[in-house]
Amino acid sequence: MSLLQEIAATIGMVREKQPLIHHVTNYVTVNDCANITLAIGASPIMASDVNEMEDVIALAGALVINIGTLDSITINAMLLAGQKASKRGIPVVLDPVGAGATRLRTTTAQQIIAAVNPTVIRGNMSEIMTLAGLQGKTRGVDSAVDEWGAAKIAQDLAGKLDCVVVITGKTDTVACKDSICRVHNGHVMMTGVTGTGCMSTSLIGSCCAVQQDAFIGAAAGITAMGIAGEIAQKTLKNEEGLGTYRVRLLDAVSHMMPDTILNNGKIS
Amino acid sequence: MSLLQEIAATIGMVREKQPLIHHVTNYVTVNDCANITLAIGASPIMASDVNEMEDVIALAGALVINIGTLDSITINAMLLAGQKASKRGIPVVLDPVGAGATRLRTTTAQQIIAAVNPTVIRGNMSEIMTLAGLQGKTRGVDSAVDEWGAAKIAQDLAGKLDCVVVITGKTDTVACKDSICRVHNGHVMMTGVTGTGCMSTSLIGSCCAVQQDAFIGAAAGITAMGIAGEIAQKTLKNEEGLGTYRVRLLDAVSHMMPDTILNNGKIS
Amino acid sequence: MSLLQEIAATIGMVREKQPLIHHVTNYVTVNDCANITLAIGASPIMASDVNEMEDVIALAGALVINIGTLDSITINAMLLAGQKASKRGIPVVLDPVGAGATRLRTTTAQQIIAAVNPTVIRGNMSEIMTLAGLQGKTRGVDSAVDEWGAAKIAQDLAGKLDCVVVITGKTDTVACKDSICRVHNGHVMMTGVTGTGCMSTSLIGSCCAVQQDAFIGAAAGITAMGIAGEIAQKTLKNEEGLGTYRVRLLDAVSHMMPDTILNNGKIS
Repeated sequence: MSLLQEIAATIGMVREKQPLIHHVTNYVTVNDCANITLAIGASPIMASDVNEMEDVIALAGALVINIGTLDSITINAMLLAGQKASKRGIPVVLDPVGAGATRLRTTTAQQIIAAVNPTVIRGNMSEIMTLAGLQGKTRGVDSAVDEWGAAKIAQDLAGKLDCVVVITGKTDTVACKDSICRVHNGHVMMTGVTGTGCMSTSLIGSCCAVQQDAFIGAAAGITAMGIAGEIAQKTLKNEEGLGTYRVRLLDAVSHMMPDTILNNGKIS
Repeated sequence: MSLLQEIAATIGMVREKQPLIHHVTNYVTVNDCANITLAIGASPIMASDVNEMEDVIALAGALVINIGTLDSITINAMLLAGQKASKRGIPVVLDPVGAGATRLRTTTAQQIIAAVNPTVIRGNMSEIMTLAGLQGKTRGVDSAVDEWGAAKIAQDLAGKLDCVVVITGKTDTVACKDSICRVHNGHVMMTGVTGTGCMSTSLIGSCCAVQQDAFIGAAAGITAMGIAGEIAQKTLKNEEGLGTYRVRLLDAVSHMMPDTILNNGKIS
Repeated sequence: MSLLQEIAATIGMVREKQPLIHHVTNYVTVNDCANITLAIGASPIMASDVNEMEDVIALAGALVINIGTLDSITINAMLLAGQKASKRGIPVVLDPVGAGATRLRTTTAQQIIAAVNPTVIRGNMSEIMTLAGLQGKTRGVDSAVDEWGAAKIAQDLAGKLDCVVVITGKTDTVACKDSICRVHNGHVMMTGVTGTGCMSTSLIGSCCAVQQDAFIGAAAGITAMGIAGEIAQKTLKNEEGLGTYRVRLLDAVSHMMPDTILNNGKIS
């Protein structure tokens, strides 16, 4: 099977197996993450109290950790959830939102990586450069930086941390120690809606819950999101703008099937 | 008046009296709960700090307690709000989200029931079975379990706790000690949108604030939600999916009038 | 330039400079605030932990403080963020949600005003009357009260606190010590969507980040929101209601350009 076929098959498996995806995530986009998880056919649970982590992890097919809003209680919950998931062999997907923008976010992301050893890390170029120890300046959480060297940065970090690294931007890069691919789907309007990054991460979590090969799982999540971004844009009429676009993103994910991937995926 | 007529009249009273509905609720669907409360003609207030409970309860027509996301601070707020509402005779509607899925949720729901004596409890079959002490396995918060015996389970629990019990599913069951009804409205797409359960509970709260008979109030809320689920589905065009469906749910509730109930309600 | 032209130019500057708007805000409408900030062309960041305030404020063009949901941790974060912003000369916009409804909200708003000296305060009549020490009864957070004397109340408070005061309602009033204007845009459907007030405040923050004259910045934000409310209503078809209206509000803001202001603004 080609990578695109593997990705398509992964989307089919999510719909068939309906895995439960545990999120310890931020309060800005948590509703969007829950809805996109449902739209791809998985089932979301959001729980951040340390007293129910054990029970939730026991039910979960994957764990998504998103540091978009932090406080000391949440940081502890993320670490605990991540460690319990690791111990059980459940895939952990980390979204280091705003790493580089504040020291708290940078150090929290580093702390989670050290304690949990995530299966996949997905960020924008600035966030990933920060985690790679390279000079990075994050401008808030919507930064758009040069993509030069994305492949090298992603693969070096993936090798160092022994995980899959995804850098999203105009083109998305997915890398593990041995493999790399680029996803050319997506649309610039995605940067005008809050949480499209977080939603991508939820889709990666949904895919990694059913796909043992995390490289394929990560590529599947990011490809599904990118294709949804394109389909959503094509439906817009003249006066429709970012509000409608946000609704149509969810529409497109809810109709995402293996064939949608095969017909629209642009992987290289 | 028939039950359907009573329900229709209740919806009319919500629009006329615009009660203030206090929510101590989860951070995943809180925005949806606020918007659906406005859409039915009531007014939402979300407050979870113990230092303003007294003042908020003094203004409220009903209290909604939803345990969808828990931590120690929120649990205290729920107990305090519930007790203050009970003391003032304000209806309390409990949504035991995820009871059975984690021990924290099960024990918290039990603790609230013991301390507050809610007016209405609304959950899915798995959550209600857990509260009834029957064998229940909740798969996250979107469980769909067999409906066999729903009537008996609901009425037994309602009798034991002296409250109204609502079990939502393909058919919804509303029971109190002396009465029982089934609501056959709704659409399966509702399970693809996060918070449709929470929103139902907010509608029940809105109705119970103006309707002294909590059995009718609970039936009114759940019937309004089910009808909205049907109307929303009928409006969908080919490419439209869960994103648009979610928007149309709110549209349908915002147009819900006594006549909408009379023309579409399927009660037995 | 006329005030309307100044307002139009301000909207153009937001799109050009894309300022980062820091929010310490409530968990009910935080997603709406992030999306409207993106829709007008600015960039949102939501951070409420005291350990990253210094770093976030260093990046921010304006700070929005919204007291819609309070707890002791958040109150400290608001005070700290406000003081750091004041010290750096960054505009601070305060939304005193529910002041007058509970003592906690009233005293918190007063505490923030005393400690921070906000650049702009935006509230409904009841909230502003409370802050002015006049008899005010807030009915939750969606109160609609008589507008009699709005101009005098706004300007007195603005003079006393040396800031810009905005009272939103059927007509919006913007006042500073020396100037006053009324904005006649807007639509009553805005009161049926949660967070339209909060979103107005985010737009004011976005405008004040690029417009040195806070009176013009405040008028720009409120005019943009009012015009969006009108445009959104005009697009609605028969069955469409509050759900679609909410989406179209965001559409309209995402298409808001200087010309939209010039063609639709009703300022006196």
